[in-house]
Amino acid sequence: MRAVIYQNNEAHYLSDQAKPVPLDGESLIRVELAAICNTDREILHAYRPDFHGIIGHEFVGVVEQSANDKLQGKRVVGEINISCGNCLYCLTDRPNHCVNRATLGIHNKNGTFADYVTLPDQLLWVVGDDLRPDQAIFTEPLAAALRITEQIDLIAETPVAVVGDGRLALLIVEALALTTNAQLTVIGKHPEKLQLFERFAQTTTSTQDSYEVVIEASGNPAALSTAIGLTRSLGTLVMKSTYAGTTEIDMSEIVVREIKIVGSRCGPFDKALDLLHSHRLDLPSPVLFKPQEFQAAFDSSAFKVALDFR
Amino acid sequence: MRAVIYQNNEAHYLSDQAKPVPLDGESLIRVELAAICNTDREILHAYRPDFHGIIGHEFVGVVEQSANDKLQGKRVVGEINISCGNCLYCLTDRPNHCVNRATLGIHNKNGTFADYVTLPDQLLWVVGDDLRPDQAIFTEPLAAALRITEQIDLIAETPVAVVGDGRLALLIVEALALTTNAQLTVIGKHPEKLQLFERFAQTTTSTQDSYEVVIEASGNPAALSTAIGLTRSLGTLVMKSTYAGTTEIDMSEIVVREIKIVGSRCGPFDKALDLLHSHRLDLPSPVLFKPQEFQAAFDSSAFKVALDFR
Repeated sequence: MRAVIYQNNEAHYLSDQAKPVPLDGESLIRVELAAICNTDREILHAYRPDFHGIIGHEFVGVVEQSANDKLQGKRVVGEINISCGNCLYCLTDRPNHCVNRATLGIHNKNGTFADYVTLPDQLLWVVGDDLRPDQAIFTEPLAAALRITEQIDLIAETPVAVVGDGRLALLIVEALALTTNAQLTVIGKHPEKLQLFERFAQTTTSTQDSYEVVIEASGNPAALSTAIGLTRSLGTLVMKSTYAGTTEIDMSEIVVREIKIVGSRCGPFDKALDLLHSHRLDLPSPVLFKPQEFQAAFDSSAFKVALDFR
Repeated sequence: MRAVIYQNNEAHYLSDQAKPVPLDGESLIRVELAAICNTDREILHAYRPDFHGIIGHEFVGVVEQSANDKLQGKRVVGEINISCGNCLYCLTDRPNHCVNRATLGIHNKNGTFADYVTLPDQLLWVVGDDLRPDQAIFTEPLAAALRITEQIDLIAETPVAVVGDGRLALLIVEALALTTNAQLTVIGKHPEKLQLFERFAQTTTSTQDSYEVVIEASGNPAALSTAIGLTRSLGTLVMKSTYAGTTEIDMSEIVVREIKIVGSRCGPFDKALDLLHSHRLDLPSPVLFKPQEFQAAFDSSAFKVALDFR
């Protein structure tokens, strides 16, 4: 099969890879679309120097082989954390933080930039017929956006700022606009990108205001101090971006202003699919590349980019 | 009057300072003891380059002049944040974070290393006769320790680690041991200091364990990454130490492990006095210095150091 593999600090396209064999409890999925997210780009910048294998973790595909009748032949999306079931975190209902976990395309588990991928059945979610693959491909990042609503209480009219005007920021803004009554402001650098947000939030390139909740979704480590500055004392800063390396932070400001910083990662697929099925989101269609064009796909500045394995 | 003044990046002892005149709503307090805390030491290391005036904010004294009968002639301790009453924070019941606030001995308000200090009446708390000045002097830092119990829910047997074996750490450990059912472990570098903690917590100089809640109270910026490493995924890191300058932090670890960082500052004087009046604390007596010996006091490594203005 075809696959994009990360090894020796580089990504390679190979067309002669062996089709994976599902383990007990896993299904074999024929990948339709596999999207590129910033984490994939970070891997190429040595964010996960220990990972070698097929990259990619956002996908939509069709189950080709499964012991589970509810999955066989169905279009699915999949969660990315494969937990052990036995560690402290698994035994206390926090499987996404399993210490022995593999993470699809990120750690110890081949990913989705390939014709086929295997995943445990309990991580697969059936996509209804009313969603096209280029819509369902947004499930994983939309779930990550909705994670915020599980972690903090966005009571009515809470002033919330989202820092960033990229894909992650747009998913967060639409998710919060459609599922909460928060008062949303998007702070970005690119007026042309900010136009996409206008249906859902106020937009600005600079602000003198402060916010009870600030969501850092810019992907830019330099934005961290801006984000802290926008956060009210006793307020909450939600960190969605991951960066390679360390970042400088004035911890005294966090202490003196009693700011809360909340790391936020993977979220609820059920809620993300419900929101996609509501057809109230307004997301740009992904730009599709052939698998062998992966380098151009990685270099693309398009809003959403996916490799098309159909 | 006598006073220790910070100006031109240095502290000076002066014996000819004018006695302060209380404003409307303020009382005049004759200082008995004024303790030195790490924030005072940080001021000497340019943590607050804009501050000029009398330093010091932990004190116990006797009200010499007040329009308030309940305060006149009484021994008191005092809160340190003087709020404006009109800003966003004051109007939303968060006066300790008033944007226009003065902070005793730290920002825009002369402090307690002097024979006399003035403070608004509503910041003063009467000390019962059963507490000596060298016991009451612990009220402010004990209140800051108890702040943690207002911010996070320490349900029974929660594994909690306190990083640090200094004064702040001891106050935190005793406060949590006597007011919660948390399972406490103190992680320090000095076996002789750790002995003080043994009545209240497990102690260790190294650990392979992880903790639902970690409290950083070491005063050492290098301990931050250790503290993050000790915090369980989805757990909480409470920051009590302030450091001058910025600190390096791996924000991706915060995001991926969904750690919550909570800045924690000033706390409830009523609860601190209740705990002091319970006489269940076990705290070393402060070492007392004359005001003109302030430099030796600053340099002292004693557990608790205070200037004696009696």
